[in-house]
Amino acid sequence: MRAEIIAVGTELLLGQIVNTNAQYLSRGLAELGIDVYYQTVVGDNKERLMQAIDIARGRADLLVFTGGLGPTLDDLTRDALAQYLGRGIELHEPTMNKIISMFAGRGGTFVESNRRQALLVEGAAPLRNDTGLAVGNALKSDGTCYLLLPGPPREMKPMFDNDGATWLKEQLGPVMTLHSVMLKFAGIGESGLEDVLIDLIREQQDPTIAPYAKEGEVAVRVSTKAADAEEASRKLDGTVTEIRRRTLAHLYAEEDVPIEAVIVRMLTEQGRTLTLAESCTGGMVSELITTIPGSAVVFLGGVVSYSNQMKIQQLGVSAELLEGPDAPGAISSETAAAMAKGMRLAADSDFAVSITGNAGPAAAEGKPVGLVYIGLAERGRETRVEKLQLAGDREGIRLRSAKRALYMLWQTLAGQGNG
Amino acid sequence: MRAEIIAVGTELLLGQIVNTNAQYLSRGLAELGIDVYYQTVVGDNKERLMQAIDIARGRADLLVFTGGLGPTLDDLTRDALAQYLGRGIELHEPTMNKIISMFAGRGGTFVESNRRQALLVEGAAPLRNDTGLAVGNALKSDGTCYLLLPGPPREMKPMFDNDGATWLKEQLGPVMTLHSVMLKFAGIGESGLEDVLIDLIREQQDPTIAPYAKEGEVAVRVSTKAADAEEASRKLDGTVTEIRRRTLAHLYAEEDVPIEAVIVRMLTEQGRTLTLAESCTGGMVSELITTIPGSAVVFLGGVVSYSNQMKIQQLGVSAELLEGPDAPGAISSETAAAMAKGMRLAADSDFAVSITGNAGPAAAEGKPVGLVYIGLAERGRETRVEKLQLAGDREGIRLRSAKRALYMLWQTLAGQGNG
Repeated sequence: MRAEIIAVGTELLLGQIVNTNAQYLSRGLAELGIDVYYQTVVGDNKERLMQAIDIARGRADLLVFTGGLGPTLDDLTRDALAQYLGRGIELHEPTMNKIISMFAGRGGTFVESNRRQALLVEGAAPLRNDTGLAVGNALKSDGTCYLLLPGPPREMKPMFDNDGATWLKEQLGPVMTLHSVMLKFAGIGESGLEDVLIDLIREQQDPTIAPYAKEGEVAVRVSTKAADAEEASRKLDGTVTEIRRRTLAHLYAEEDVPIEAVIVRMLTEQGRTLTLAESCTGGMVSELITTIPGSAVVFLGGVVSYSNQMKIQQLGVSAELLEGPDAPGAISSETAAAMAKGMRLAADSDFAVSITGNAGPAAAEGKPVGLVYIGLAERGRETRVEKLQLAGDREGIRLRSAKRALYMLWQTLAGQGNG
Repeated sequence: MRAEIIAVGTELLLGQIVNTNAQYLSRGLAELGIDVYYQTVVGDNKERLMQAIDIARGRADLLVFTGGLGPTLDDLTRDALAQYLGRGIELHEPTMNKIISMFAGRGGTFVESNRRQALLVEGAAPLRNDTGLAVGNALKSDGTCYLLLPGPPREMKPMFDNDGATWLKEQLGPVMTLHSVMLKFAGIGESGLEDVLIDLIREQQDPTIAPYAKEGEVAVRVSTKAADAEEASRKLDGTVTEIRRRTLAHLYAEEDVPIEAVIVRMLTEQGRTLTLAESCTGGMVSELITTIPGSAVVFLGGVVSYSNQMKIQQLGVSAELLEGPDAPGAISSETAAAMAKGMRLAADSDFAVSITGNAGPAAAEGKPVGLVYIGLAERGRETRVEKLQLAGDREGIRLRSAKRALYMLWQTLAGQGNG
């Protein structure tokens, strides 16, 4: 099956947003064994959208649309496709009821335009939207398949992964599909990892080995096409075992999960608790940990000690460490250790991780941008501090500091710590 | 002039990389007054690429290509275009000399395939590449303009901004360029905002009014084409003034900045300080505030009080509020107020904002998912609490809670608070 992805939205043509949906869908379709031949972006214009549909229909068997399912008059993907196919529009009652009860539930006023989000192209199967209001559409007409998904990634992704993929698999019947294992790494950069695996990457044929990096994490995807899981595992196992052997100190998961999810799972299994004392990361580590459902069981909380006053008052850091001509200052190994120890004692947690540093944009306390200290206090063990000198802009330094702190904690939980 | 951006590269169709080039070029072309009607992605396949050229030539006056100018056999943008136009290929001597001397300079062996990077479509003007080897191409044929740029963003961007833009300006002659004002809103949803502006949006011609939403924020872009800034402001002012009049309680900026940046600026101007006590948002508000350089001057820090123990110990919330059969519990108006007051007093800040609620996935304390309380304590004034019932998944509820807390603080700083 050959697919074309059609993103609908003038904001894409104006460069206001990047078409990350196309990447997500391209990967997802590849996993289903569907080849993407074209990606197209067209504005919120019915005539041009219908022309794009006509061209795509001539060169693809599956058209996947993103965007244009919302409540506003600009949202016209569904109308354009219905008109192109000569079909009507029908109301999807369950979605309409969901919208009405949502407005009733939060005491808001139901705005008539929201009704648009409950509409389907006549004869289309509805695709459930668990993270938003607009219902998705799936239909087949004259041998061509059409999938209509919402534009916001947080609605599009789960809809595609659940109802969308299920519907596509039904259309495909039994096929050789792509099977892959995702290996996730921490505490190592993309080029460092590539160095360790360079011969495997150079000689790869089947399975394929694709490394990539995003938002402070590095991953490798090992993939092959196979009829079933058993054949896939037979083809993948050798390569995965060899990569595992070479990267043990950095391989934190063999599925696509963030390191914070693994940490919450390990803490839960070990029955241990965590607190955080963050300075330059400003709450980022707490925010990452608490994205994980169930984190409340093991994460007691934390202090964002952005000022010295907060370090002294809430963490019990000695003022002598922070102030005075000969003091080590807020950005120091001593302060990182005191923050972690103070936090752990105040909350009586099993672990406390601290981060203090200079994320920029200018030098602070005479310390250079990118200098960061991470402290790790553990009940009954010596407190450890790691010193980093990171490159990049403010957000990059903050993110890499946060991920490094999580790596240090993971190492300790996995029994690989050197403390 | 109507443009189509054509990205050439199988890696895009496999989802290995995101097409950020399309965004960069869309913005750059808009600034030159050129409308982008379509963005297309096609693989490294000559036949399909020539078909894409043929379609694009029928609907655009300018085709901007990225990718396919490199040394390998996969790089065939130049060959495909030459064949499509019935032109030959010629060597660009200065680029060839640059490549040869580069190889000589670093003692490497000149690989014959590198010669390909010095080739031009017959009759094309060369576009200088200051950050790489492949020369760009610019040509006009039968009234259609063609711009061939490299794929790597660090080569593409400077080539487009320098020789590319210069060549395009020559083709355009004196023109009208796009001028726009970005209006940013908080405390109101996309459909709510559209309701308030529906007649303006329906009747829009010039200037255009484009609403859009991303990550908990809503924005409206008002745009017009004009010869200079003075004419633009004359054409935009009436519409902007009318929108401003209708949306005063929600319009927090007239430029593309997040609300946390405006809050840090207002606190700085007013010489006041802030602390945060976050429960269900787990540090997200702290994280947002500290993304802003200079936030350390006004943001003292915060407590992520994920457990009751932290609420009692670090914020001084009374245990009677939290525990016991008749206690209001952690997710309550009383606790939100106590968290904000306790945080403000502990740090002696001018403001403290608190957030407590249930972000899901399951009910907690018998309180439904999406129930959130936001508290705002201010020096010398009564503490206020706002109750929200939000829809969506865990991340959506957290993000909207955080943005709502920032909105409440902004209202107060802007003197619009009702407390």
